[in-house]
Amino acid sequence: MTIVSTTITPQEIEAHYSVLNRIGVLGDHPNAGFTRAAYSDEESAVMHYFAVQAEQNGLITRWDAAGNLFIETTDRHEQWIECGSHVDTVPAGGNFDGLAGIVAGFVAIATLNQKTRSHGLRLRIWRGEESASFGITSIGASAALGKLSADSLKKRHAGRSLAQAMREQGADPSLIESGQPTIEQNELNQISAHLELHIEQGIVLEKEDKEIGIVSGIRASSRDWITLHGAFDHSGATPMGTTYRRDANLALAYILVALDELFSSYQKENPDIDLVQTIGHINSNREKNEHDKQLYNNAISKVSGYAYFSFELRSCDDILRNRYKQKAMQIIQHIATEYGVSFEIETVSNSSGVKSLDQPIQRRMQSICESLDYSHRTLPSGAWHDAALIAQQTRSDQTTIPTAMIFIPCLNGKSHSPEEFASAEQIAKGASVLATLMQQHVGLV
Amino acid sequence: MTIVSTTITPQEIEAHYSVLNRIGVLGDHPNAGFTRAAYSDEESAVMHYFAVQAEQNGLITRWDAAGNLFIETTDRHEQWIECGSHVDTVPAGGNFDGLAGIVAGFVAIATLNQKTRSHGLRLRIWRGEESASFGITSIGASAALGKLSADSLKKRHAGRSLAQAMREQGADPSLIESGQPTIEQNELNQISAHLELHIEQGIVLEKEDKEIGIVSGIRASSRDWITLHGAFDHSGATPMGTTYRRDANLALAYILVALDELFSSYQKENPDIDLVQTIGHINSNREKNEHDKQLYNNAISKVSGYAYFSFELRSCDDILRNRYKQKAMQIIQHIATEYGVSFEIETVSNSSGVKSLDQPIQRRMQSICESLDYSHRTLPSGAWHDAALIAQQTRSDQTTIPTAMIFIPCLNGKSHSPEEFASAEQIAKGASVLATLMQQHVGLV
Repeated sequence: MTIVSTTITPQEIEAHYSVLNRIGVLGDHPNAGFTRAAYSDEESAVMHYFAVQAEQNGLITRWDAAGNLFIETTDRHEQWIECGSHVDTVPAGGNFDGLAGIVAGFVAIATLNQKTRSHGLRLRIWRGEESASFGITSIGASAALGKLSADSLKKRHAGRSLAQAMREQGADPSLIESGQPTIEQNELNQISAHLELHIEQGIVLEKEDKEIGIVSGIRASSRDWITLHGAFDHSGATPMGTTYRRDANLALAYILVALDELFSSYQKENPDIDLVQTIGHINSNREKNEHDKQLYNNAISKVSGYAYFSFELRSCDDILRNRYKQKAMQIIQHIATEYGVSFEIETVSNSSGVKSLDQPIQRRMQSICESLDYSHRTLPSGAWHDAALIAQQTRSDQTTIPTAMIFIPCLNGKSHSPEEFASAEQIAKGASVLATLMQQHVGLV
Repeated sequence: MTIVSTTITPQEIEAHYSVLNRIGVLGDHPNAGFTRAAYSDEESAVMHYFAVQAEQNGLITRWDAAGNLFIETTDRHEQWIECGSHVDTVPAGGNFDGLAGIVAGFVAIATLNQKTRSHGLRLRIWRGEESASFGITSIGASAALGKLSADSLKKRHAGRSLAQAMREQGADPSLIESGQPTIEQNELNQISAHLELHIEQGIVLEKEDKEIGIVSGIRASSRDWITLHGAFDHSGATPMGTTYRRDANLALAYILVALDELFSSYQKENPDIDLVQTIGHINSNREKNEHDKQLYNNAISKVSGYAYFSFELRSCDDILRNRYKQKAMQIIQHIATEYGVSFEIETVSNSSGVKSLDQPIQRRMQSICESLDYSHRTLPSGAWHDAALIAQQTRSDQTTIPTAMIFIPCLNGKSHSPEEFASAEQIAKGASVLATLMQQHVGLV
């Protein structure tokens, strides 16, 4: 199929950022970072900005019971191509994680609204994707799909429950509490494609000098705490070796090295393996430490009797991740036993990824990048995104909703920090791929 | 030389403990533990108990300017055999670390006082051996030998400076401040042997079912903090491998395993190597953590950018320890570089051990154990003791003072805890070796 491309300019992106750089900004300059919590006045202010912009551009706005904003073209078609993302931030975060996708999506739809189409266009501005405020990811999208538990509404942030914060921003938590989705099944059935543009939040595109990332899948994580119980003993008077020492720190070191070697053996079999393994914490969780006296029984002059670490795996492929985790747990058990150390496992979370985003759309994105002369590569999304929830929905005919993600590079791979940055040029290129994808319905289903 | 043995009974030990179990005890029963800080009323109370006992047994008492108590036989000889230890405890410690040596020494001298000798006998009750109160080890013995720095007197504990605490217990810190020893050179010259009985503070004797430990040397330690600086990155979006990750936790694990392997290679060369290596802390120093925001930038979902560990080596042999440490530091540097992590070393302390305690006395102890039918073995002292300071002194003729230590087993190897325990039978056996050693001067010099 011939590609009829729509190009978005950096100026069109800048026009919105010149206003948006002032909402939720900490201090006088965007460099100081942004705080727009989930269901805060700052988040609403950005959403209202787009609602006004939508009306000025002849688009329709709808607010759902969860406080999400949906912006649509006025034409009524049987099929819709939509995009979405979020506008909230972590505390002292940047202005690109989420917002870049909304700006790109809005410009794309406003541009395409002028052109003849056989399908409708929609932008979904989801509330509260970041878990930083209430400890829950993708609050708005989950609620819209009837997947937010009633218990979640009791979670608190900044002195308010989530239900209160929702009410203050004009949403209706009573509907959410009942588990009723705010998006009807028929609307889901009519979605031909759901797209999300996002900054990479990693350094791969920048390091490899690629302008566009075609996202293959969305990783989800399993997270566990592993606690090791050894024996505290006098460091000078206790001979070396496992006859005398039950050294939690030593067992921990051998476990971590063995886990790294396990990963290497998998990677040797499959150099492109879709899996990452991270020990983010060794005894460094402030909250845990405040409540755990055992950690502070360690001393320079004692064999260590207590240590813990976090163990995170991320993959798009739940089956691969679970199988790997089983091997990892065997290794932990084996080494702990060898060093005379007992252990406990406490599972923090275990969520489902998207093994493969829609492959026809990925192929189409490749063609678009080539026709626009944008360098590109395929890569998994290491972070969670709202689009994953749509990818996990089914239509009435039991098919899934074709879902895709476009990544753009971000400076030094940084996100969730005031240093987070993507240039208007970089966003405009991603927006051009997005607009070109949204322009032609044929070939997407 | 024939051995004329003096046997001490468990009842003689019990007689003193029945009183001493009430001084500084936490709660109604010795099981709750003991707190007798350096230069506290509780420490003084125990010393006064022995002063009274000494007078009742026809012995002379002397208090020096550092508040140490010296108990001596009345006969004036050119040569003296002495023993010593301390009566202070760590907070919530036990009643045997230090005190067992004083009880044994007192019973030995009181018993031998009845017998004809060609030498004088002396017991030195040193103040504040434990570093728990003022952060300084062997305060009393250091001060007596003119080795306590004026700065040390400013250290604080329980709202008082060391100088104030000394004054409250009747000592004279102004003399200590001037660096004047309280023991004259002539007195040092006349010491034929200095002995210390102590609980092992380790589990070797108990595990091997030995009644007496003949101490080969006294280990001292070098202690360092090693801090690793990596880069905090998104755990999902940052590919595995050192091209993308500068993982402080991973570098730490590889370093610890390499250090353990370094030790093993040394031990393979020399199975009886006098060296222990301990990583007591990984990110677990409460005080450091409270002041160090970087540690709490670690998260489950981030590659670790910051970690630290303590690195302690103990050996009687300073040269061996220093050479090993050099290799260890090369390994740390090598691995840190390999993982793209920078590092800092902060030296906490670096003290000198006693490579070899007096060998003629060690041989004599063996003969005594055999004649008394006590099972025994030779082992290094993993912990520091007051006797090390005497061993490091020289007499006017540049010879060292023959110094030896007798270890007795302690339950489960525990010390510095309310669980610390040695039975009256175990102490009495050690006291019998001590008394037999002190009885005959010949063969000791």
